[in-house]
Amino acid sequence: MSNSLGKLFTITSFGESHGRCVGVVVDGCPAGLAISEEDIQSDVDRRKPGTGAASTSRAEADRVEVLSGIYQGHTTGAPICLLAWNGDVDSTEYEKNRHLPRPGHADFTARIKYGGYGDPRGGGRFSGRITAGYVMAGAIARKLLATAGIKLLAHTVQIGRVKAPGRRSITPMEVITRAEADPLRCANPDASAKMLAEIEKARQDGDSLGGIIEGIALWVPVGLGEPVFDTIEGDLAKALFAIPAVKGVEFGSGFASASRRGSRNNDPFQVRHGDVVTATNNAGGILGGITNGMPLVVRVAVKPTPSIALPQKTVDLDRMKPATLAIQGRHDACIVPRAVPVVEAMMAVTLADFALRAGVLEVA
Amino acid sequence: MSNSLGKLFTITSFGESHGRCVGVVVDGCPAGLAISEEDIQSDVDRRKPGTGAASTSRAEADRVEVLSGIYQGHTTGAPICLLAWNGDVDSTEYEKNRHLPRPGHADFTARIKYGGYGDPRGGGRFSGRITAGYVMAGAIARKLLATAGIKLLAHTVQIGRVKAPGRRSITPMEVITRAEADPLRCANPDASAKMLAEIEKARQDGDSLGGIIEGIALWVPVGLGEPVFDTIEGDLAKALFAIPAVKGVEFGSGFASASRRGSRNNDPFQVRHGDVVTATNNAGGILGGITNGMPLVVRVAVKPTPSIALPQKTVDLDRMKPATLAIQGRHDACIVPRAVPVVEAMMAVTLADFALRAGVLEVA
Amino acid sequence: MSNSLGKLFTITSFGESHGRCVGVVVDGCPAGLAISEEDIQSDVDRRKPGTGAASTSRAEADRVEVLSGIYQGHTTGAPICLLAWNGDVDSTEYEKNRHLPRPGHADFTARIKYGGYGDPRGGGRFSGRITAGYVMAGAIARKLLATAGIKLLAHTVQIGRVKAPGRRSITPMEVITRAEADPLRCANPDASAKMLAEIEKARQDGDSLGGIIEGIALWVPVGLGEPVFDTIEGDLAKALFAIPAVKGVEFGSGFASASRRGSRNNDPFQVRHGDVVTATNNAGGILGGITNGMPLVVRVAVKPTPSIALPQKTVDLDRMKPATLAIQGRHDACIVPRAVPVVEAMMAVTLADFALRAGVLEVA
Amino acid sequence: MSNSLGKLFTITSFGESHGRCVGVVVDGCPAGLAISEEDIQSDVDRRKPGTGAASTSRAEADRVEVLSGIYQGHTTGAPICLLAWNGDVDSTEYEKNRHLPRPGHADFTARIKYGGYGDPRGGGRFSGRITAGYVMAGAIARKLLATAGIKLLAHTVQIGRVKAPGRRSITPMEVITRAEADPLRCANPDASAKMLAEIEKARQDGDSLGGIIEGIALWVPVGLGEPVFDTIEGDLAKALFAIPAVKGVEFGSGFASASRRGSRNNDPFQVRHGDVVTATNNAGGILGGITNGMPLVVRVAVKPTPSIALPQKTVDLDRMKPATLAIQGRHDACIVPRAVPVVEAMMAVTLADFALRAGVLEVA
Repeated sequence: MSNSLGKLFTITSFGESHGRCVGVVVDGCPAGLAISEEDIQSDVDRRKPGTGAASTSRAEADRVEVLSGIYQGHTTGAPICLLAWNGDVDSTEYEKNRHLPRPGHADFTARIKYGGYGDPRGGGRFSGRITAGYVMAGAIARKLLATAGIKLLAHTVQIGRVKAPGRRSITPMEVITRAEADPLRCANPDASAKMLAEIEKARQDGDSLGGIIEGIALWVPVGLGEPVFDTIEGDLAKALFAIPAVKGVEFGSGFASASRRGSRNNDPFQVRHGDVVTATNNAGGILGGITNGMPLVVRVAVKPTPSIALPQKTVDLDRMKPATLAIQGRHDACIVPRAVPVVEAMMAVTLADFALRAGVLEVA
Repeated sequence: MSNSLGKLFTITSFGESHGRCVGVVVDGCPAGLAISEEDIQSDVDRRKPGTGAASTSRAEADRVEVLSGIYQGHTTGAPICLLAWNGDVDSTEYEKNRHLPRPGHADFTARIKYGGYGDPRGGGRFSGRITAGYVMAGAIARKLLATAGIKLLAHTVQIGRVKAPGRRSITPMEVITRAEADPLRCANPDASAKMLAEIEKARQDGDSLGGIIEGIALWVPVGLGEPVFDTIEGDLAKALFAIPAVKGVEFGSGFASASRRGSRNNDPFQVRHGDVVTATNNAGGILGGITNGMPLVVRVAVKPTPSIALPQKTVDLDRMKPATLAIQGRHDACIVPRAVPVVEAMMAVTLADFALRAGVLEVA
Repeated sequence: MSNSLGKLFTITSFGESHGRCVGVVVDGCPAGLAISEEDIQSDVDRRKPGTGAASTSRAEADRVEVLSGIYQGHTTGAPICLLAWNGDVDSTEYEKNRHLPRPGHADFTARIKYGGYGDPRGGGRFSGRITAGYVMAGAIARKLLATAGIKLLAHTVQIGRVKAPGRRSITPMEVITRAEADPLRCANPDASAKMLAEIEKARQDGDSLGGIIEGIALWVPVGLGEPVFDTIEGDLAKALFAIPAVKGVEFGSGFASASRRGSRNNDPFQVRHGDVVTATNNAGGILGGITNGMPLVVRVAVKPTPSIALPQKTVDLDRMKPATLAIQGRHDACIVPRAVPVVEAMMAVTLADFALRAGVLEVA
Repeated sequence: MSNSLGKLFTITSFGESHGRCVGVVVDGCPAGLAISEEDIQSDVDRRKPGTGAASTSRAEADRVEVLSGIYQGHTTGAPICLLAWNGDVDSTEYEKNRHLPRPGHADFTARIKYGGYGDPRGGGRFSGRITAGYVMAGAIARKLLATAGIKLLAHTVQIGRVKAPGRRSITPMEVITRAEADPLRCANPDASAKMLAEIEKARQDGDSLGGIIEGIALWVPVGLGEPVFDTIEGDLAKALFAIPAVKGVEFGSGFASASRRGSRNNDPFQVRHGDVVTATNNAGGILGGITNGMPLVVRVAVKPTPSIALPQKTVDLDRMKPATLAIQGRHDACIVPRAVPVVEAMMAVTLADFALRAGVLEVA
C-alpha cells in the first residue's frame, strides 16, 4: 500500500509518465461536497508549464476526467477516480539509454529494486508528471478544507542563490495575489526578475537550478494533529517528500531555530479579540505536533533538476564500465515554479485527512 | 492508530512522563532474533542524562522490563512489550500551572485538543521522556538491522551557534567512537568544548539552546524504500518529527542544494570494486526515495528547549488575561545530546520496517 | 481507506454500476510477474452471465483495460489500474424510485449514510457489478499465487433447497473441471439439473433463490496467516463479506463442528511422503489462524437476490407512508453461479497478501 | 501490525499464556470518557471460569492494572495500556511435549511459522488466555458505545447437540438478565440444564464440546459501516475469528437464508413511531454492509475444545514418526460459556471503531 497516503482521506496514485495516463483515487471524501470537473481542471492547469523561460516545451494539455465518485455535481461518498490521458510522446531515448543511469535520478535505484521490469519511459513512476495526480486529489481536498474556512497557498521564496525578501510587510492574501500573477510564483517582482535571469543563465549553460518553496495554511483551527506519531509536521513532511526532488522540509523557524536561544524562539502567548494567539510564529503554527491556530508555515527544499544538457559521468550498467551521458531533449532548467501547486496539493491532502480525523469539517 | 508507526515492523508507544511507566509494543519482529534485556538496557542507558553541564538533575534510573515476546533469549514472533516504571516524581507544579501554558510547549494545543482531560504532569505525553520507549524499540530494530550488516549512528553537529567542522577527514567509525566518548556526543573535541561553554552560558542566563543532529546509516543495501509515498525520506522524516522539539529534517545536501546547480549537486556514478557507487553523496544515499547503497545521511534541527527559567509572557487560560510565567525547577539547558540516541532509534525503527518490506533481513 | 483491502498486496475498488466504469487499483504486486490483458479478461469473462436460465439479460461485454503498472508483458512494481467501461444503461427507474427503498437492498442505509448524495443508478456502489473490479484484481493475485504453486477454485454446493452431494468421491481437479463446464458451476450434474429447475420455478414465481459456494485453495504452504488479528479466517471472511449478499462464512466443519465432540472434530496428524498431514480436514486447512498445508476450505452463504418481481412492502421515504414496490426489469433469479468466480477472486487477493507477507512467492 | 485491530479505535494485543502477563493497548479512545479500573475489572471477571461443571480448575485471579491513558477517572486521549500479571504456572508439560503437536491446536503451524522460537508454554499466543486482553479493551469500548446508547450482549444458544429455543418470546433485556444469571450464559434454564449434563458427560468421557454463541447489539444507529471493504459484517467477522476456536460467523438468517426465497428473506420496510424499521430482521440489522437501525445479530460457531484427555494420534516431529498423545491436566470440557464475554468484547471493539468513524459518539 505504498502508493496510498492518509488514514481517513486517502489518495492512491497510479500511472506513468509515458504510459496511458496519470491518475489518482481519492477515498474517504464525505458525500455532498459540491465539486465540478472544472474545479479540478483549474488546479491542474496551474501545474502546467508557463510560457516564460522556466518552462519546458512539452505541451501537456492535461484534461482531467472524473471516472467515479461524483454525481450531479456532488461527491457521493464513493471513491473518486480522476485521471488525465497521456498524449503521444517519444520514449525512444529512454528505452535506448536504460543501461546509462542518469546522475541524480532514480534510474539506478529503480533498476535494482524492480529488477529491470520498471517502465523506463519518461522516468516512469519517478517522473514529475506523477504529481498531476497529486494535484487532482489536492483540488478535492482544498474544496473540503474550504468548508471549514481553511485556505492554502504556496510561493517561491528562493531559486538558486536568489532569495525573495521576507513576507513581513505584505499580508498572506497579497502573497497569493502576487505569486499567482508571477511566472515563477514569486510574490516579489524584483526577486522574480532576478530569478528568471538566473534560470536563463543556467539554461544557456546546459545546467539547472533548485530552490525553496514556502507553503502557508491560513485559518487552521486549533487542535489538528494526532501525536505522538501522526504529528502535523510528520505527516506533512511525509507527503511533501513524495514530490520528486524535495530533499528538506522545515516548519516555522526550522533549521534557523537550532542557533537561537529559547527566549528568542519561544512564541509568547497573548489574547487577541478573545482568542489565544502567539506574538511571533517561530513554531510555524504547530506546538507538540498539533496546530495552534496561527498560520501553518512549511518550507520545502527542492534540489536542482538532475536532467541537464552538460555531459555527466555515469556507468554503463550492462558492461559495468565508466560512460558519459549527455541528456538530449528540452528539460526544465528549474522545476520550482511548477512544484508550487504540488506543494499546495500535498498540504491540502494532508490537512484534509487531519481535519476529518478531528471532525472539524461540515459537508452537506 | 496515531501512536503506532510502521507497516511490517510496527511500534506502539504508551505511557506518560509522570504516570506509572513509559513503554512500547514492538510488533512484526521476526522470530529467532537473539536479544537480551541487557541489549535493550544498554541502548536506554545512552539516553540518560550525562554528568556534564548539559544534563538535568532528574535521576532517571530507567530499568527496562521485557513483558512479552522474548523467550529463552530470542524473539518469538509475538508482540514485544517493553517498559520502564517511572520513579516517584513531584507533579505539583504542573498541576498548579495548568492554566498557564508554557510558550513553545504543547500545553495550550493539548488543552484544546483533549478538552482539559490530558495528563498535565511533567508534560504527560508531550514530554521527552516518552522517547525512552522509542529507544527501547530502536534497540530491537538495531539488532535486526545488524543481521543485514546495517549500522546506524548519530552525532551532534551543532549546538547554538557552534558548529562542528565537516566530517570529511574522519571515517564514520571514528565519528562513532569519538561521539560516543564525548559528553555532548560531538565527534570534534574542540567544538564540543565550545558547545559546552555555550550551554553553560545559556544556563546561567536562565535560557536554552537548540542544535543539529546528523544521523548516518552505513552499509544499507540498494533498494530500500517504497515510492511514491513510502519513500525513505518521507518515512524517516515522519519518524523523526515524532521526537519533541524537532522542527526540520533534510537529507544529503538538503537545503543547501537549493542554491546549487545540477552539475554541482548530481552525484556522478562510478564503479568501485565491482559495485556501482557515486563519487559524491549529495543525495544522502537516496535517489527516487530508494536507497542507493551510499551512506544514508539525515540532519535534524532541534529547537531550543522551551522550558527556561527566564520569565515569559503567557495567558491565564481561566481568566483569559495576560500573565507571566517563570518555570521552576531544573531543566536541561540543551537536550540535543540526549536526543542523539533517539534519532538513532527512530532511524533504526524506520529502516527495519523498510528492510522487512524489501525482504533483506535474515533472521534465524 | 474503506475501499482498500490488504496490507502488502492491496486492492482499491472504484466505480459505480451505471457510472462511467468499474475498476480497481492493485498495489504491491512485485515487479516481473508475466501477465497479459487477456489473462485478466478471461477471468472477467467467467463472471459474465451465462446463457442458461440463471442469467440476466443485461449484456455485459466487459472489456478490461490496463491503464498502468504493466509494461512489455510484465508487472513493473507500480500500481496496476484496471477498468471496464460501462455500456449504455437505462437508469430512469432507479432515479424515479429513489424514495422507495427496496427491501433487502442497501437503498435505505445508503440514503441515510450518504445523506441522499449517493449514486442510486443501478444500485451505484452496492451493485454486484462492482465485483467485476474484484475479479480483475483476483486475476493478478491468481497469477502471483501460481508462482508458488497455489491453485484456487470455487463451486456451487447449494441453491435454494438443492444441495450437491459431498465431494469425497472426486478429486479437487475433477471438481474444477466439472464445475467449469456446468452452467451453474456445480460439480454434480444431477444436482445442477435440479438447481436449474428450482431457479426456473422461482423465476416464474417472480421470486429468487440463494445458495452456498465452497472455495478451496490447494497446495497452500504451511505458515500463511498472521495471528492474533490477521488470521487466515478473519482476513478471508472480511474479503468475502465484501461480496454483496454474503451473510455467512465458515471454515472446515464450521457450524457443524458446534455439535461435534473434540475427539471427532480434531484432525489427527500423520506422516505422508515425509510431510506432516492430517487424516481428516475438519479444520479446513487452518490451525490457530495459520495454514497447515491441507486444502483450505471455506463456505459462503449467499442470501436470495433481494430484487424480485413480486410486489413488496416498503416505505415512501419522502412522505413516510407505507408503499408497495414491484421491481421492474429483468433480474437474475439467482446470482450464486455468477458469484463463484468472485469468491475465487477474493480468496486469491487475500492469499496473495498473506503469501507476500510470509515471503513465499518467487517472482522474476 | 498483525496484532493491532481497528482504524480509529485500535487495540494492540500482547502477552502470552504462561509469560509475565497478558495485556492490550487501546489507542484512539477520545479524551474525557469516565472510566475506572473497576469498570474494566468487572468485565474481566465475567470471563473467569465459573464454579460449575464447565469450568477449568486454574484459578485466574486476574487483576487488571491500568498503566497509562487514564487520569483522574477519565481517559486522556493517550494510549491506554492495560494488563493482568500471570500467576505462577507449571509449564513443564508444554516444554516437554514440544515435539508432539496437539491435534486441533496451533502447535504444528506455529512451530513451522516461527521456526521453533515460539513460546510453547500454555499455548503461548494461541491460548484462550490472550482473550483476557480483548475483554479489557472491550470494557473501554462498551463504555464508549454507551455514550451513544448502544448496548451489547451475547449468550449461549447451542452446546453440543443441545440448542436453546429461539428468543422470540422474550425481550433482549430478558435475554441479558437470564444469561447473566446462568452458569453457561444461556437464557433458557431448561436448555442450560441439558447443556450442563451434556458437558458433564463429555468430561467424563475425556472429551469436549463446541457450541454457538449469539451476539446482539441494540440501539445501533443507522449508518455504521464503511463499504465496500470495511463492512459491518466483514470487520465483525475478522474480529470474531481472532477468538481461538471460532470457525464460523453468520449474520441474521445467515446460512439459513441460502435455502430461502427472496420473498421470504427480504425484510419489508415499515414506519413505526416515525422511524423506518423492518417487519422482520433476517438481515441481522445490516444492509449493504451498513447498520439499518434494527438489532445487529451475529452467530459464532465455536469448535469443541481441542484439548481432550482421550489419547490422540499425532506425529513426533523430531523423529517424524507416528505417536500417541494424551493431554494431561484439567481442561475445560467446553469453553463456550467463557467465550461469551469475549464475543461481546470483540463486538464492542469493532462497533466502537465504526461509531468513531461515523462520528456518532459524544464524549466529554
